[in-house]
Amino acid sequence: MLREDVPYFDLTSRVMDLGGIDAEILFTPKSDLTVCGTEESEHIFSMLGAKTSLLKKSGERAVAGQTVLRAYGNAEQLHMGWKVAQNILEHFSGISTRTRAMVDGAAKARSTTEICGTRKHLPGIKHLSLKALCAGGGYPHRLGISDSVLIFSNHYDLLGGIETVCATLPDIKAKCPEKKVAVEVESLDHAVLAARAGADIIQIDKLPHETVAAIVAEAKAISPSVVIAAAGGINASNAEAYAAAGADVLVSSWMYFGKPADYKVIVRRV
Amino acid sequence: MLREDVPYFDLTSRVMDLGGIDAEILFTPKSDLTVCGTEESEHIFSMLGAKTSLLKKSGERAVAGQTVLRAYGNAEQLHMGWKVAQNILEHFSGISTRTRAMVDGAAKARSTTEICGTRKHLPGIKHLSLKALCAGGGYPHRLGISDSVLIFSNHYDLLGGIETVCATLPDIKAKCPEKKVAVEVESLDHAVLAARAGADIIQIDKLPHETVAAIVAEAKAISPSVVIAAAGGINASNAEAYAAAGADVLVSSWMYFGKPADYKVIVRRV
Amino acid sequence: MLREDVPYFDLTSRVMDLGGIDAEILFTPKSDLTVCGTEESEHIFSMLGAKTSLLKKSGERAVAGQTVLRAYGNAEQLHMGWKVAQNILEHFSGISTRTRAMVDGAAKARSTTEICGTRKHLPGIKHLSLKALCAGGGYPHRLGISDSVLIFSNHYDLLGGIETVCATLPDIKAKCPEKKVAVEVESLDHAVLAARAGADIIQIDKLPHETVAAIVAEAKAISPSVVIAAAGGINASNAEAYAAAGADVLVSSWMYFGKPADYKVIVRRV
Amino acid sequence: MLREDVPYFDLTSRVMDLGGIDAEILFTPKSDLTVCGTEESEHIFSMLGAKTSLLKKSGERAVAGQTVLRAYGNAEQLHMGWKVAQNILEHFSGISTRTRAMVDGAAKARSTTEICGTRKHLPGIKHLSLKALCAGGGYPHRLGISDSVLIFSNHYDLLGGIETVCATLPDIKAKCPEKKVAVEVESLDHAVLAARAGADIIQIDKLPHETVAAIVAEAKAISPSVVIAAAGGINASNAEAYAAAGADVLVSSWMYFGKPADYKVIVRRV
Amino acid sequence: MLREDVPYFDLTSRVMDLGGIDAEILFTPKSDLTVCGTEESEHIFSMLGAKTSLLKKSGERAVAGQTVLRAYGNAEQLHMGWKVAQNILEHFSGISTRTRAMVDGAAKARSTTEICGTRKHLPGIKHLSLKALCAGGGYPHRLGISDSVLIFSNHYDLLGGIETVCATLPDIKAKCPEKKVAVEVESLDHAVLAARAGADIIQIDKLPHETVAAIVAEAKAISPSVVIAAAGGINASNAEAYAAAGADVLVSSWMYFGKPADYKVIVRRV
Amino acid sequence: MLREDVPYFDLTSRVMDLGGIDAEILFTPKSDLTVCGTEESEHIFSMLGAKTSLLKKSGERAVAGQTVLRAYGNAEQLHMGWKVAQNILEHFSGISTRTRAMVDGAAKARSTTEICGTRKHLPGIKHLSLKALCAGGGYPHRLGISDSVLIFSNHYDLLGGIETVCATLPDIKAKCPEKKVAVEVESLDHAVLAARAGADIIQIDKLPHETVAAIVAEAKAISPSVVIAAAGGINASNAEAYAAAGADVLVSSWMYFGKPADYKVIVRRV
Repeated sequence: MLREDVPYFDLTSRVMDLGGIDAEILFTPKSDLTVCGTEESEHIFSMLGAKTSLLKKSGERAVAGQTVLRAYGNAEQLHMGWKVAQNILEHFSGISTRTRAMVDGAAKARSTTEICGTRKHLPGIKHLSLKALCAGGGYPHRLGISDSVLIFSNHYDLLGGIETVCATLPDIKAKCPEKKVAVEVESLDHAVLAARAGADIIQIDKLPHETVAAIVAEAKAISPSVVIAAAGGINASNAEAYAAAGADVLVSSWMYFGKPADYKVIVRRV
Repeated sequence: MLREDVPYFDLTSRVMDLGGIDAEILFTPKSDLTVCGTEESEHIFSMLGAKTSLLKKSGERAVAGQTVLRAYGNAEQLHMGWKVAQNILEHFSGISTRTRAMVDGAAKARSTTEICGTRKHLPGIKHLSLKALCAGGGYPHRLGISDSVLIFSNHYDLLGGIETVCATLPDIKAKCPEKKVAVEVESLDHAVLAARAGADIIQIDKLPHETVAAIVAEAKAISPSVVIAAAGGINASNAEAYAAAGADVLVSSWMYFGKPADYKVIVRRV
Repeated sequence: MLREDVPYFDLTSRVMDLGGIDAEILFTPKSDLTVCGTEESEHIFSMLGAKTSLLKKSGERAVAGQTVLRAYGNAEQLHMGWKVAQNILEHFSGISTRTRAMVDGAAKARSTTEICGTRKHLPGIKHLSLKALCAGGGYPHRLGISDSVLIFSNHYDLLGGIETVCATLPDIKAKCPEKKVAVEVESLDHAVLAARAGADIIQIDKLPHETVAAIVAEAKAISPSVVIAAAGGINASNAEAYAAAGADVLVSSWMYFGKPADYKVIVRRV
Repeated sequence: MLREDVPYFDLTSRVMDLGGIDAEILFTPKSDLTVCGTEESEHIFSMLGAKTSLLKKSGERAVAGQTVLRAYGNAEQLHMGWKVAQNILEHFSGISTRTRAMVDGAAKARSTTEICGTRKHLPGIKHLSLKALCAGGGYPHRLGISDSVLIFSNHYDLLGGIETVCATLPDIKAKCPEKKVAVEVESLDHAVLAARAGADIIQIDKLPHETVAAIVAEAKAISPSVVIAAAGGINASNAEAYAAAGADVLVSSWMYFGKPADYKVIVRRV
Repeated sequence: MLREDVPYFDLTSRVMDLGGIDAEILFTPKSDLTVCGTEESEHIFSMLGAKTSLLKKSGERAVAGQTVLRAYGNAEQLHMGWKVAQNILEHFSGISTRTRAMVDGAAKARSTTEICGTRKHLPGIKHLSLKALCAGGGYPHRLGISDSVLIFSNHYDLLGGIETVCATLPDIKAKCPEKKVAVEVESLDHAVLAARAGADIIQIDKLPHETVAAIVAEAKAISPSVVIAAAGGINASNAEAYAAAGADVLVSSWMYFGKPADYKVIVRRV
Repeated sequence: MLREDVPYFDLTSRVMDLGGIDAEILFTPKSDLTVCGTEESEHIFSMLGAKTSLLKKSGERAVAGQTVLRAYGNAEQLHMGWKVAQNILEHFSGISTRTRAMVDGAAKARSTTEICGTRKHLPGIKHLSLKALCAGGGYPHRLGISDSVLIFSNHYDLLGGIETVCATLPDIKAKCPEKKVAVEVESLDHAVLAARAGADIIQIDKLPHETVAAIVAEAKAISPSVVIAAAGGINASNAEAYAAAGADVLVSSWMYFGKPADYKVIVRRV
């Protein structure tokens, strides 16, 4: 990531002869947040030859004004790492802070509801996206499509609809006995079908929390161990309501997007 | 990017035996947009062994309902590429569409004002971010910090403030005669100082468009060839106003963030 | 993989001037087997500029003497690819053939018992190892340790033994509602404990098939949906017995090791 | 190699909250062996943030029960590295131990006979395979096909058989004056032909050690400096016999395959 | 770079058993030069497990006989790194020393003339080539073709010649307001055209310094801020003359080629 | 290599709108040479989406004015690939042409003398350097230090000088029976010592061809099969003399350096 921004050197520092100035750089959030990315940022300054002091680890909370990372070196080194470190901190602290808001929201209503982030993160940076998700108290919904079975409507529509798939669900389950099989549903009727067919997880797509509550009631009556996952439009403002509806898992892409967190960055002589 | 999501296979397709079904997949925007990412998405399906038909190239406009990419293959191949392709199309078409909105906005007021995207894209995916920026009619502000000289306040504060730097600007310019030297200013007074010192570019940080207009007037009176770049909070809703103020360049990170574009994806038997 | 064996050229072909001879190379198994690696081998010859003809795909069975891959080119190209292609075919067809033997063995006794390969493949070549496993009709037991929960004795011994873990199993399950939780047991008593605690999967380590049968009976009586996985010393010669014992999953590393399959390779003028 | 097994985290440790337990991990062979892979295993634990203590270097002998590597850290870190380190140690100590057995066997009969491993190691992990070979006292037969000249029957059959090649051997040797030229033979008659033609090395393929002894006698009578290499089916049980037959080099793939060495791994609180 | 030369080990050291000898290696220039590559060379010896002592950093001058790098270790380690380190030091010190000669030459006549290296370095090693250029006091002319605008004759010939391009220069400049636009000229007449059209930089190709002086005079009379870059056949022997002619920038590929610097390398017991 | 020069796009082509012009590019040597690099250059244009026509393969001779590569595409694509392709062609055709001059020179005196290039090529681009060497009719002296045994004075000085090493040469040879053992000598006396000790190759360092002739005579009298390699200052002007002296191998770094070959490059509308 450093090479993207600094393929060779900082031309501005060089023409201004900043290489001879001893300085420190401080990264300080402008508002309360859940930190993510201090380890990666520290690594960038280390590679550039600066000394570092990591004050808040990923996953810890920081209040506005509380410095999370310091680096010491010459001003050219610090300027080389500045923006890359800031970008990492701001983007991934944004994700972890939004995840934390969802986790805290859901926990108000139901302590065991988990917040799971989808595969709809930005392509190419899954690793840091999932780190930020976990730093905020969430879990990945699926690491990818090789590790779990989630039958979307696009799968069963190829085979004749949800009824057909429900009819063959026992066979499907026998092929992957170590996995829970999830079936996506878009209505209460379909949820009932899936519960009766023995789906391990019913993933509800884009239904209001009242309907989720109805599905929880009916599906768990049919199959007490069934897991109810709610997806589609879930975010920090409605996580509590969906958790209160009894969903075991809230599946969301909302935390991946939105404004980066805001960090104040200061470089000063030491 | 495929490996992130599909390290080995699509387990769902496999346990459902979708590999024997011939199908097609269609990617169709739900609203008008400027396309970005069809080439990369096509490449993903090609790697998976599917046949493809690219209907809109990056940079072209598509209207809602107009399919931009089709792939043909067995249903397992198509499901393997689905989400990665969709993610690429949605995120990068989002950037290109927002850039295009800024370009169109600015053009209403002043045809020569350029929209430039900052280095504040997501770390690790600069290449696609800049492609999307260009697809929308923008330019990169700086490719990185090795290729251009932009003296931020953090640079000159280390040396005693903008006055000190303005005093040494001729020396700095002599060291990089093939580059334009940009100086960041935060007030009209500073802009006047920079113009008098011979700055090639005055980059205005977070000032209202009325002040930008005033700076344009004063600075160009002092130095007719000076380039005025406005930065800080500029987006599609105010690009016209800043362009009307006479800025030559609008520098923004706004296009990199916000909701991904929305594509409808259909897989169906053929 | 080609670069490992052929960093620059084939010195023998070069000093013997074989570059001018048009030839073909044929890969033919010496005994019946389940093929794996023809796609990778074909790719190697293509990279070298040879034309190829893939006669058996990975996963297909071939009988002794039935050629699975042919390549045509000059004799220097063919010699450059020879040994790498042969190594790939022999090692990975060995894995797929041994897996197939286990799958066929288990199927004699119980059609729904799955053969799963462990993480104990050779480090650095997981991708081809899992491909060979699947080509033989098996599945990966776990893709890695990020995607599933398997509580080994080394985990619970840190916390005070299996009883302690069984006591907290509901809490553990609530943290990963989308995953089945597996508990490793080394005796019938422990299996009963785990079944009562609600383990989704009971993984039996190194017990004779008679004990497995007893565990199946007792554990399924307690928890009808529990999955029984048997591990430790399972191979083609005893897969049938363990399947007959009622295990749902046979977990093995046996297919990864042992003699490579034997292919006859002929290069001849055309 | 770590990423293969642990793309993100150890889910089991995470849901069991093992991250807060200070522990150590110990790797101890269950039988006497020649160690290989402690450096790579140590590196894995270091990357994970654990402290390490390397007690036996690759190439050293360890007796059953003698710990070769220790790492200290939190239990989550140790579980992340466990299986990858164990796999490396077991597979490559297996190769080095089998090589050592061949070296020791040959040395009983003839101190200057070298054990050389072929190019038939597993594709993709040549580097560690050759390290293990050397750790056991062997040498690579050929690093690849760019660095040496070995005329197999498949080479000379293209040109009309061994007689034709022997006739042109002086020309071939003149093209690579810095290399020894090896000719593969499958009978005593061919060996005599090759010796008379000036082959630097005669590589005997799949002949009993009695025939090897006869070839050594005849070929060295013709050409005293000729090197006799025996290949095909040579392993620890017959290395002594082939060395006693006078072969200068024993060429084998046998050490690359077979059961991995067995290490006991313990994780315990500290 | 180490792997290129030492894919596995140093066979000579191994058969001579040098691994048990403690030794040091010293790199000492045979003539005065500007050092480049000691950091990379030190890194190579560190990777090999040797201890190092870096006595001259890249960019510093060393006189003949003054050791710039020392490494301590066993003789096998030192021989493994020897030639790669020597190659790096010799090639890149050659570039930095030749660059320094041009910088010093130009400075005799005109202190503000910059020496810029072209993109015509060896492909694949741009990074070290530019490091050496900077170590010698030069700057990269262009990092690549994405970061700057230089209109060569091949560009304008496609559009109808220099007159056509000069007519559209204001439009071109408006599209890249943050960049200086350079126009290549091959005569005084063309230079005058370009200056009148508002070119920011006039790059003179292969004209004698007397003509350069004439162009400087005429072009700066037309456009005082225009930058004059001279290219084509410029080297240490004529840099002073071209600087005296008033060129602001001397563009050259000369420093990239020519004899490597000569270092004496000693390995001795310690 | 393309990314080094063109990380994103050709800014000049873009601001000049060259993307809409159909054009061809032609690479034509300005003097007779042995071509190297047309395959790599063709690949670059293919990656950029241009169509290509390779007229001379690496290793073929081209006369001045004879086009070796053509590519067709839009003018932006062609400008993106231009300089990288030109750099590859010029540098590596330079190496192959200089090698060819040495090969032809030596062949005048002695048809079996081989030209071998040393390991002193530029670090990081060994692969293309060796390709160019072979294209010119040469061979690599050593691919690296893992594949051959060459005892330099720095090796034997650690052990007490050439006499000590000669005394142990039989033991050294027994450890690597498949390799020829080379000993570097710096005088006739040393050559005689080495020949008597049984060195397979005597590598003469920096002695005049008259002394080489004397060494050839004496050494071959002692050991008829010994190979004489001459190194140090050998180039196209003296290759014939050294070959005439009877050296079997001429070892040189001379071909790697010196002026790149000169190609005329034309872009024109089609």
